[in-house]
Amino acid sequence: MSGPFAIGVDVGGTRLKAGLVDDRGAVLVETVRDTPARTSTPEVLEDAVVGVVVELLGRAEGPVAAVGIGAAGFVDAERGVVVFAPHLPWRDHPLRDRLAERLDVPVLVDNDANAAGWAEHRFGAGQGETHLAVVTLGTGIGGAVITHGRLQRGRRGLAGEFGHQQMVPGGRPCECGHDGCWEQYVSGSVVGRAGQELVRAGGAPARALDELCGGDPARLTGEHVTRAARAGDPASVAVLAEVGERLGEGLAGVVAALDPGRVVVGGGLSEAGELLLRPARTALSRRLVGGAHRSVPDVVAARLGARAGLVGAADLARGTAGGGGG
Amino acid sequence: MSGPFAIGVDVGGTRLKAGLVDDRGAVLVETVRDTPARTSTPEVLEDAVVGVVVELLGRAEGPVAAVGIGAAGFVDAERGVVVFAPHLPWRDHPLRDRLAERLDVPVLVDNDANAAGWAEHRFGAGQGETHLAVVTLGTGIGGAVITHGRLQRGRRGLAGEFGHQQMVPGGRPCECGHDGCWEQYVSGSVVGRAGQELVRAGGAPARALDELCGGDPARLTGEHVTRAARAGDPASVAVLAEVGERLGEGLAGVVAALDPGRVVVGGGLSEAGELLLRPARTALSRRLVGGAHRSVPDVVAARLGARAGLVGAADLARGTAGGGGG
Repeated sequence: MSGPFAIGVDVGGTRLKAGLVDDRGAVLVETVRDTPARTSTPEVLEDAVVGVVVELLGRAEGPVAAVGIGAAGFVDAERGVVVFAPHLPWRDHPLRDRLAERLDVPVLVDNDANAAGWAEHRFGAGQGETHLAVVTLGTGIGGAVITHGRLQRGRRGLAGEFGHQQMVPGGRPCECGHDGCWEQYVSGSVVGRAGQELVRAGGAPARALDELCGGDPARLTGEHVTRAARAGDPASVAVLAEVGERLGEGLAGVVAALDPGRVVVGGGLSEAGELLLRPARTALSRRLVGGAHRSVPDVVAARLGARAGLVGAADLARGTAGGGGG
Repeated sequence: MSGPFAIGVDVGGTRLKAGLVDDRGAVLVETVRDTPARTSTPEVLEDAVVGVVVELLGRAEGPVAAVGIGAAGFVDAERGVVVFAPHLPWRDHPLRDRLAERLDVPVLVDNDANAAGWAEHRFGAGQGETHLAVVTLGTGIGGAVITHGRLQRGRRGLAGEFGHQQMVPGGRPCECGHDGCWEQYVSGSVVGRAGQELVRAGGAPARALDELCGGDPARLTGEHVTRAARAGDPASVAVLAEVGERLGEGLAGVVAALDPGRVVVGGGLSEAGELLLRPARTALSRRLVGGAHRSVPDVVAARLGARAGLVGAADLARGTAGGGGG
């Protein structure tokens, strides 16, 4: 382990994940708590964040240079404000300045997908590539853009929102209010729902999934389908292949716009590995404009798992406190 | 006028436009020639470029610091290679090094839309905004991305290819080999074809366009429709409104990915001005994810017209030769 240390906190809709992180991205101490309910107040959630940070400060064997927060929502990193977060009570909440005052340490606040993408760039599957697109497949699709080794947040911190590009006009309704958004065809939730449909339809193809959920399709998740596919269940493999193809088709738009040297796919669904990524690569090559006259970037699985967000938040905060980083 | 001067050359499918440009973006001397046919050789086209540069070198009243080329095609600016250009004979052509040797002056080669976008950032409608998306509407859709005041070319110079995001699955066939690409619904050519259909259908709504093309719909272009719309022809106004709406819908994807502070719309079709941009703004606001919780960037018309490409190429070349620029 090597200093200086930084603390990273990943504020998701269900969990607060926090860790003490060294400058090689290693997590030395970790703590996880439930996120206060969406219906709680901005202050209660802020107190919970302060709580995990104070706990980690107490357990750090050395000085802590900075605290980084990755929050699931629209974040204006420049001003340190959580503008809007569908699953959190913060609205235009000046989180950075409030935490900096309460904790007496430099604080950085960013979007959780930006933090996770930055971690993969620095310590994970994006190492050695200065032009990177990162997509995070969880409940929906998050994204991060890195060019020239720099995290690109856009004018107000909202860059990398890839999930709502229109894939099917008049298609599946999306929480955002539109129809046919990419994330309605590619996410862990989508895989879970496809598995549920299989179980409801019944018959031989559904047997493996039916066992996994004990006959109750409502209990089936994307993780179940991924596990069954890895064990060789043909119906689950087909679900991942279909979703992988939609992943690649959407990536074609991302790659055409950004021309990254590599695409990193993270989030829970990336556990499916090659079962998802092989069909995605094929679809990307087929769909990318001028594909025959250009190199098509590789699509690889993220390596830092569920810790990516807190590791990246810590590293971004350390970099900002020290004048480097993103 | 003020030096140092640079020469910019815009190599399009039909015209070579070249100019001597000062460091405020003013074009002091200009020359235009026909581009040698697509069926000519790489050498013939290269000789034509050398010809216009030598002419301008002879007419410059002062030293010329650099030569910039903006070419319509895939360009690897870092290596100075025209990788592929559908309307030009160059294939993996090391244009920069060949020209630098023949002309004995620093040369930069970039994509024409990148050059035009850079010019708008430096001297046109993008001035004062460091995070910019530029779309160029001509035969198809070209694009440029600027973040932190820097032109973003991607890993191999191909960033900003927005025109082939899928808008309508199974929709209008595109030259790229796919169906339903954005540029099949938004371009000068699209406006021209919509006008031709109106004339063929005949009747009162087509009267103004019918007059403009002398009764021969095949002669009708996007410029005709734009002119008729500006003169108040309701059918032409409706064509531009429809295309403007499609423009805004596609821009929603671009803005979600990049979060620019402003969008500049250039190319021939931008002559339509507010008739195109007002419906585009409305559609962008409606379609942009989280639009109610974020600021929506303004969409403005480019200001440098058909000279943007040569002005931007010259400025990029000057910046590189002097160590600044993009």
